[in-house]
Amino acid sequence: MISEQYRNMLQAKSVIRMLSEKATKRGSEIGYENVFDFSLGNPSVPAPADFTRVMKDLLEKEDPVKLHGYSPTLGIPSVKEKIAASLKRRFGLSYGPEHIFPTAGAAGAIAHALRLVTKPGDEVLTFAPFFPEYHPYVDLTGAKLRILPPDRENFQICFDELEKALTPEVAAVLINTPNNPSGALYSAETLKCLARILEDKSREFGHRIYLISDEPYREIVYGGVEAPYVAAFYDATLTCYSFSKSLSLPGERIGYLAVSPRCPEAEVLIQMCGQVSRGIGHNCPSSIIQLAVAEVVDRTADLKVYEKNMNLLYDCLLELGFEVVKPGGTFYIFPKALEEDANVFCTKALDHDLVLVPGDSFGCPGYFRMAYCIETEKVERSLEALRKFVRGNYR
Amino acid sequence: MISEQYRNMLQAKSVIRMLSEKATKRGSEIGYENVFDFSLGNPSVPAPADFTRVMKDLLEKEDPVKLHGYSPTLGIPSVKEKIAASLKRRFGLSYGPEHIFPTAGAAGAIAHALRLVTKPGDEVLTFAPFFPEYHPYVDLTGAKLRILPPDRENFQICFDELEKALTPEVAAVLINTPNNPSGALYSAETLKCLARILEDKSREFGHRIYLISDEPYREIVYGGVEAPYVAAFYDATLTCYSFSKSLSLPGERIGYLAVSPRCPEAEVLIQMCGQVSRGIGHNCPSSIIQLAVAEVVDRTADLKVYEKNMNLLYDCLLELGFEVVKPGGTFYIFPKALEEDANVFCTKALDHDLVLVPGDSFGCPGYFRMAYCIETEKVERSLEALRKFVRGNYR
Repeated sequence: MISEQYRNMLQAKSVIRMLSEKATKRGSEIGYENVFDFSLGNPSVPAPADFTRVMKDLLEKEDPVKLHGYSPTLGIPSVKEKIAASLKRRFGLSYGPEHIFPTAGAAGAIAHALRLVTKPGDEVLTFAPFFPEYHPYVDLTGAKLRILPPDRENFQICFDELEKALTPEVAAVLINTPNNPSGALYSAETLKCLARILEDKSREFGHRIYLISDEPYREIVYGGVEAPYVAAFYDATLTCYSFSKSLSLPGERIGYLAVSPRCPEAEVLIQMCGQVSRGIGHNCPSSIIQLAVAEVVDRTADLKVYEKNMNLLYDCLLELGFEVVKPGGTFYIFPKALEEDANVFCTKALDHDLVLVPGDSFGCPGYFRMAYCIETEKVERSLEALRKFVRGNYR
Repeated sequence: MISEQYRNMLQAKSVIRMLSEKATKRGSEIGYENVFDFSLGNPSVPAPADFTRVMKDLLEKEDPVKLHGYSPTLGIPSVKEKIAASLKRRFGLSYGPEHIFPTAGAAGAIAHALRLVTKPGDEVLTFAPFFPEYHPYVDLTGAKLRILPPDRENFQICFDELEKALTPEVAAVLINTPNNPSGALYSAETLKCLARILEDKSREFGHRIYLISDEPYREIVYGGVEAPYVAAFYDATLTCYSFSKSLSLPGERIGYLAVSPRCPEAEVLIQMCGQVSRGIGHNCPSSIIQLAVAEVVDRTADLKVYEKNMNLLYDCLLELGFEVVKPGGTFYIFPKALEEDANVFCTKALDHDLVLVPGDSFGCPGYFRMAYCIETEKVERSLEALRKFVRGNYR
């Protein structure tokens, strides 16, 4: 019989997708260039030219039987070596290839990480606002996702809430910094405090609480700083990375799970990834994509545009009286709506061809998300629409 | 805490992998060209030049933001369209894009198919000899794989055993034709009989029994015939296909799940694939690989070598007195060992640098598998070793 579980999931329509469809429809009426579509988090800058060059070189020079052959269960050794060397150089932890498992993006990494350190019935904690896909990611493993209330002041972590929520049922804490949707970057202070609490509670409960760190936006950080590296603060960290945003390759499904070399049994955890893969039909990302990404592991696409867009929007939002935390990275901003129900607010915005996403599905009602991974020229044009919308409705 | 389930799986060493490692070790001593390694089922012929050309064209001509952008949840429409058109043209069923879901190879297709039509506790039947990965594929969903005894005469299906095993707990039957490891191709007669039984039992139990058809070897069929198309015989068929073998692209992880247009609620099942993907971190195969494969969907690598190798081996095995079913396809042959314990037989063969895989892990003790996806020249040289081994030990 057809699975009721998956059939029922079809009923729950994604708000983001519905809004994006509305934007497309409106675009067909007035031209998509006139719809200020802030709904989708798709990179708007091209992959670096070096990636394309490496792909073409591989196709021209390599023996196709080897190039397109099976990747070993745990990933191509030379690829793992290059990823590990890059992490070691950048963040100072002694990663080796034995700590790296290539995955189909961060989603694939999280799918593996969750299965490594949770079992059905366990609790996984995360903090609002959070990426809504965490629900299916966690819930479909049989574990339970529990959302802790947001720190509305800075979108860091409410540690009081965390201490209350940490019970022996909690197997892992799932964080995302820089954060989708808030754009907040967890400070070193935040990560130190988080680590201390997790260490204390792990000791108290007599079992290790794992930290699953979802870091697809690690390279998109503003103000010339580098994101504090989560695994440097807490030993039992499983880092879930994607090249989707840093190299503008979301469709190629490439990333990795890195288990901190300081994590007890790190190598066993990576070996177990090969077993998890058998059950979920994964069997490593595309060989050619693995090989190509490894050659440009320290490059990024030209990411400057996102900071430029952020500053334009942030200044305009402040000018219009919004309460808004300045993003430290990503390509999202998450202001408080100008009325209690952000759904109503976003519906009114649609009349001005502004496509904004209400914060409810991110666990943060009353706020809205803008994904500003679009052309700067369009962001600039959108400011006038934003001003008209606000002045027309809220003055 | 670390998952005990996956940790324990690390203990079970794969016989095929251990043998392959022995072959590599022996190769470092005497030169790999002198080890007759029949252990691994990796294509030995290159991908068609057209595939490489299409890949390079895409990299040169397409906008990288679009080319490497997110694939829609249910796959790239133009890709689904081309796969559907090919199936329709070749097999006469009215497939449309709404019946196709691109996956990471056949493993990814099976991972989705199982979750669509089974729930934890359900039974999935398969027939020995069978691909050993079916165990983790099925068991890790929470369903239970049940192996039915082989038809040793032709490696078709023992229908008596099937009728006995079909209880209301059975949600799906999983078949693989042409078959790994036996090389047997299910005849139209076999598929008709299978369909009739499944229809009768579905009616009797009041719920549909699904047929999951694993077809990565569909294009490797001998004697100039085409493999009878499973979905043409039974409506509730979920076809799991991979381009790994037909296009020699095993590392690129590309295939599809096709739900028969005659299957009730076929379109709902495909839509549900998008939900299954969220839980297993899949999110579609690589965009560029999807696009490239769609352009060469009706091509194959030069597969003739496999039939040539098969005939050489089959004739020699007959000459040496082996009991062996002539393969109808794949690149495997599955003779009966010359002593009761095929493990002992295969260990003795190693002394002649012949790497053969005992049938036990395929659910068929007393037999052994030879994967002859190697150069014909090497197959020819192996025949002398085979003769010496047999004459030295069993005459």
